[in-house]
Amino acid sequence: MASDDDIAATIIALERAALDRWGRGDPSGFLEISAPDVVYFDPFLERRLDGLAALATYYDAIRGKIRIARDEILNPKVQRIGDAAVLTFNYVSYGGTDDGLRWNCTEVYRREGERWWIVQTHWSFTNPKKG
Amino acid sequence: MASDDDIAATIIALERAALDRWGRGDPSGFLEISAPDVVYFDPFLERRLDGLAALATYYDAIRGKIRIARDEILNPKVQRIGDAAVLTFNYVSYGGTDDGLRWNCTEVYRREGERWWIVQTHWSFTNPKKG
Repeated sequence: MASDDDIAATIIALERAALDRWGRGDPSGFLEISAPDVVYFDPFLERRLDGLAALATYYDAIRGKIRIARDEILNPKVQRIGDAAVLTFNYVSYGGTDDGLRWNCTEVYRREGERWWIVQTHWSFTNPKKG
Repeated sequence: MASDDDIAATIIALERAALDRWGRGDPSGFLEISAPDVVYFDPFLERRLDGLAALATYYDAIRGKIRIARDEILNPKVQRIGDAAVLTFNYVSYGGTDDGLRWNCTEVYRREGERWWIVQTHWSFTNPKKG
């Protein structure tokens, strides 16, 4: 059995790899590790988005439109509960200007066999009122 | 064993009861069902808050200052993964004015024995740019 440290490293590496593709305009890194029953929040939607098909439609509309010059995952933490792993972190992304966008992120992963799948994503702005 | 439907009802009832106390200015409803290792995001913080002691300090500063006249949990969903349960919902709260505040919320609960504890809370504003 993998240790909690090994699982945390696996989860953070999955997220990092998906973010790397995201920053090059490719949302498929996230789509390929999201489960059919994934639920999703971000600051641009009017309500929770349910299911991989809905997420794929949403992401396809912005494919190729994102460019992140540099970014950083800050203080990632993984809480494991059996076959669930809750990844939380702050995140800062720079798109070419000096001011970064600051985010809060929660990802819940679920293990099936040897693979981990995202079942819940929640992105929000960190303290947007001071934005 | 409780069915998934029973567990979903239990989780939603816990959240509803804690929100009822919250709306009367009492944050202890949430503190009393949060685990020692709870992690927490909301739109007013500069970073993730880690641990029940930190959350208690934060909430104690606003004790008695919140009044919610009416509110609604919208479309709650519970995804269960063994002893983990991921509750997501949209939420609207009215403090006495006509315009409600609209929220996205993710709560991750962990079962220990017969009780469920919050181990991750993420509150954010729904589409704040249109706020």
